[in-house]
Amino acid sequence: MSEEPAKTVYDELIASPRVLLGPGPSEANARVLKAMTTPMLGYLDAEFVQIMDDTVGLLRRVFGTENSLTLPVSGTGTAGMEAALTNVIEPGDSVVVGVKGYFGERIADIAARCGGVVTRVEAEWGTHIPAEKIAEAVTKVSTPKLVALVHGETSTGILQPLRDAVEIAHQNGALFLADCVTSLGGQPVEMDALGIDIAYSCTQKCLAGPPGLSPISFSERAVEVIRNRKTPIQSFYLDMTLLENYWHGEKRSYHHTVSMSLIYALREALRVVLEEGLDTRYERHEHNARALLAGAKAIGLQPAAEEGYRAPMLTTLRIPDGIDDTIIRQGLITDYGIEIGAGLGIFAGKAWRIGLMGESSNQRNVMLVLNALEKLLIASGHKVEQGTAVHAASQVY
Amino acid sequence: MSEEPAKTVYDELIASPRVLLGPGPSEANARVLKAMTTPMLGYLDAEFVQIMDDTVGLLRRVFGTENSLTLPVSGTGTAGMEAALTNVIEPGDSVVVGVKGYFGERIADIAARCGGVVTRVEAEWGTHIPAEKIAEAVTKVSTPKLVALVHGETSTGILQPLRDAVEIAHQNGALFLADCVTSLGGQPVEMDALGIDIAYSCTQKCLAGPPGLSPISFSERAVEVIRNRKTPIQSFYLDMTLLENYWHGEKRSYHHTVSMSLIYALREALRVVLEEGLDTRYERHEHNARALLAGAKAIGLQPAAEEGYRAPMLTTLRIPDGIDDTIIRQGLITDYGIEIGAGLGIFAGKAWRIGLMGESSNQRNVMLVLNALEKLLIASGHKVEQGTAVHAASQVY
Repeated sequence: MSEEPAKTVYDELIASPRVLLGPGPSEANARVLKAMTTPMLGYLDAEFVQIMDDTVGLLRRVFGTENSLTLPVSGTGTAGMEAALTNVIEPGDSVVVGVKGYFGERIADIAARCGGVVTRVEAEWGTHIPAEKIAEAVTKVSTPKLVALVHGETSTGILQPLRDAVEIAHQNGALFLADCVTSLGGQPVEMDALGIDIAYSCTQKCLAGPPGLSPISFSERAVEVIRNRKTPIQSFYLDMTLLENYWHGEKRSYHHTVSMSLIYALREALRVVLEEGLDTRYERHEHNARALLAGAKAIGLQPAAEEGYRAPMLTTLRIPDGIDDTIIRQGLITDYGIEIGAGLGIFAGKAWRIGLMGESSNQRNVMLVLNALEKLLIASGHKVEQGTAVHAASQVY
Repeated sequence: MSEEPAKTVYDELIASPRVLLGPGPSEANARVLKAMTTPMLGYLDAEFVQIMDDTVGLLRRVFGTENSLTLPVSGTGTAGMEAALTNVIEPGDSVVVGVKGYFGERIADIAARCGGVVTRVEAEWGTHIPAEKIAEAVTKVSTPKLVALVHGETSTGILQPLRDAVEIAHQNGALFLADCVTSLGGQPVEMDALGIDIAYSCTQKCLAGPPGLSPISFSERAVEVIRNRKTPIQSFYLDMTLLENYWHGEKRSYHHTVSMSLIYALREALRVVLEEGLDTRYERHEHNARALLAGAKAIGLQPAAEEGYRAPMLTTLRIPDGIDDTIIRQGLITDYGIEIGAGLGIFAGKAWRIGLMGESSNQRNVMLVLNALEKLLIASGHKVEQGTAVHAASQVY
């Protein structure tokens, strides 16, 4: 084991300032970063238990639910996805999964790893899944246990309507799951009003915190299904019956040492969200997305997501013919410090993903990215007059 | 959905200062807390990829390994435990698990959830498992795939010797796994020198960072076993073949959005560890534990862990007859702001766990906790002269 001092090899941590307009992380609020400097507390300290309770209370408001079993899972959005599926699905269970992008694929993958028998309802990337197609699939399965849809599909920028799908699931005796990783805090989720049984999200997109936690919530019906399992839950780490005892039990039984720093951050991020007000926040996301799209269209960048179903927090744009994806994105980082998202899956090299999420969703960023994109496109031979994008966007404000 | 501003309900985050002498979290280094205020970077930003590489390089030095597959799992120590087991164990595999406390039990539980056929090698709580007992169990199993031992058992304060057990495992064709959640950074782990195939830890004990990540490392032999699996890995989130592509692949394929803040913190925590020097750090942990135990014994508090096998970062003490566990621990928190650990499992109400981990392992804390404990014990009727504990401890410095 080397005893050489680390400082001879590793310098102090330095990270260049970035304008984060990708699929997340978005820019964390400064209050949230500051909250993370709070010293540690014991995981059963009465003060920490109160902070946990506060966080759950705030989460319920953002999820639009009174579900008792609401908490942040100690992992990222994908851990929340896995927690949702592994707790509910037993080997042999029928699961209907909407697949219209990368994250629907991921749900289907994880559901199968849980032993679920997966029926896929597919739609082309960049489109939503019509309710009729979901109904058709669900009614064909004899006893569907779960219907799962991605609300905001981060790979395509589609915001999937949920209301009809929830009804279809319930009419067929199935639970309804919504992946709200991209939507929560940026568009209404309204679990109780819609009847969503399981929803999970992340902390680093529209909630504007650091990544590392996955807020999740289960309806009473979903909890009942978990309680009536015949086989053990595959995962101990994500076992909601154990997590419930720690987060909500009278005895607060130890399960694992949650990350105080991330809980501090999430509590502060949620306070920021609710101080702004949910409706105001949703409108802000929509307003800035409209401006961005107006500017993009004005310079010939066409949306890759179907009209009427566009997620305001993530705008996907088709890369014009003859334009090199990497040159533009590299130029944005190098010349402007702006990160936008590359295309994922079949959109790789074909679309850009511009996130306007949480703190990052503001007029300044819309203007910054449009101006920078336009300049780089012009340098790449794209025929457009300088100033066009910003001018078009400013009409929206 | 309520639009009531959050500030009318939830005040600013406040956490009282605590002297953290429980089983973790220990006190995070101030440099580590500061590192967490660094703004986010994209998960594929070249600067962030460099920070990931730095972190892995630093981790290898603390693990004492050159293993390629070394990285921090995006979850706490228990996630690391689950990652280790779920990647290696397939349904029907034979697993020999040493159970001498709460966390050995947890390994057995998770191994069974993975479909493993578990053979337990037990020892009384507060004792270590002799090599002969391990050899006996391993040789009885026809084709053991994995032998798993907890290095520092956080429930009992036992530091389990590993050298002979590694040999036994290898002689019988099994991989060897060491749970180093409590030991890493406080006592040598030396993966390569001992031949440990899989080791995992946490960030909030002897590494003195915030909780939330689980450093893990797999030997080439272990990687080979994972590559040759016949069944899919149960967990997508913890699938090391996918994590390897993100952390070490040439293409850095997206898997999930890791927590920049926690990686920043871990990188800084590891720099602090290596600047002190590993051997110096191990000696510091031993020195302060000796002083604590001298003071404790002087006031009639007997160690609950077997002599010669005590983990210096966690001292377990039997609660004397007639002394109320809760009154003392509550008094420590209320009157002195000191947290010590309650007994876990069968040690509940019977033993205290005093952690001297990472930053928390220092002479000031030894004196603080001994003086406070002594005063509270005297107030509870324990017959001892004031100043005895601190006097005895000071002889060790």
